[in-house]
Amino acid sequence: MSSKGFQDYYPDELSHCFGCGSKNPAGHHLKSYWDGDETVARFTPDAAHTAIPGYVYGGLIASLIDCHGTGTAFAVACRAQGRAMSEDPPLRFVTASLKVDYLAPTPMGTELVLRGRPTEIKDRKVIVEISLQAGDVLCARGTVIAVKMPENMLPG
Amino acid sequence: MSSKGFQDYYPDELSHCFGCGSKNPAGHHLKSYWDGDETVARFTPDAAHTAIPGYVYGGLIASLIDCHGTGTAFAVACRAQGRAMSEDPPLRFVTASLKVDYLAPTPMGTELVLRGRPTEIKDRKVIVEISLQAGDVLCARGTVIAVKMPENMLPG
Repeated sequence: MSSKGFQDYYPDELSHCFGCGSKNPAGHHLKSYWDGDETVARFTPDAAHTAIPGYVYGGLIASLIDCHGTGTAFAVACRAQGRAMSEDPPLRFVTASLKVDYLAPTPMGTELVLRGRPTEIKDRKVIVEISLQAGDVLCARGTVIAVKMPENMLPG
Repeated sequence: MSSKGFQDYYPDELSHCFGCGSKNPAGHHLKSYWDGDETVARFTPDAAHTAIPGYVYGGLIASLIDCHGTGTAFAVACRAQGRAMSEDPPLRFVTASLKVDYLAPTPMGTELVLRGRPTEIKDRKVIVEISLQAGDVLCARGTVIAVKMPENMLPG
């Protein structure tokens, strides 16, 4: 596992995402890594990210799955195309569809571990299945349909 | 449209949600209201909630849809059962499944309007379809499957 996450290869102008952008001082700074054929990200929610006291807010869980999904899509596409993650022009995926099944209440005070696996890899679309665990408990499963970012979203 | 949102009827011990809890000082404080047979909520993202510069982060959109969905489920269940929203014991719904389709990039600097409609109403489960618009642009559609909160999630 490298210390540089997938998101650290995003160019600066595409690194402002609240969930995973290194240039967003207020954000979550989620970082995703390869772990064999899977991808992994870890995040410990802070006390504000509450749903019912003692449990993590579902919107945060959706956010983490979303950002780990688009980050995984980027890494998977690079690997499939034999290109380095640092190569220009930047390859950046956005979410077309996100589905999250909340399987068990997610406890506060525990590091959450997200694991991703691609289930479909095309040039412009990657589908990623993601699990989110707190310790041994599988708390959520997600599916992210990630598509190549439209060029008109690139900052002028 | 009343000035008291559905979420203002949640009892204090269930009002800490980051997305919609009145008792979470750091949170979004989303409020949902009846508007005829639909429910509506409005939210203007702040600059930190960025995805790509100029566009709103998908995790926030998922969060808003999630909280408007569970709030709508609560209001719909109360209306279906002919009970007041303030009635004890509290009726509180949590999300079993959330799906969001991102149809168009969501621009920053515009009030987002969420509209919800129930498509299934059962005692323990309500399904809500939600649209999210920025001005005239339909940016996202979501489906929230909300279930009655398990009693073991009630704060002791």
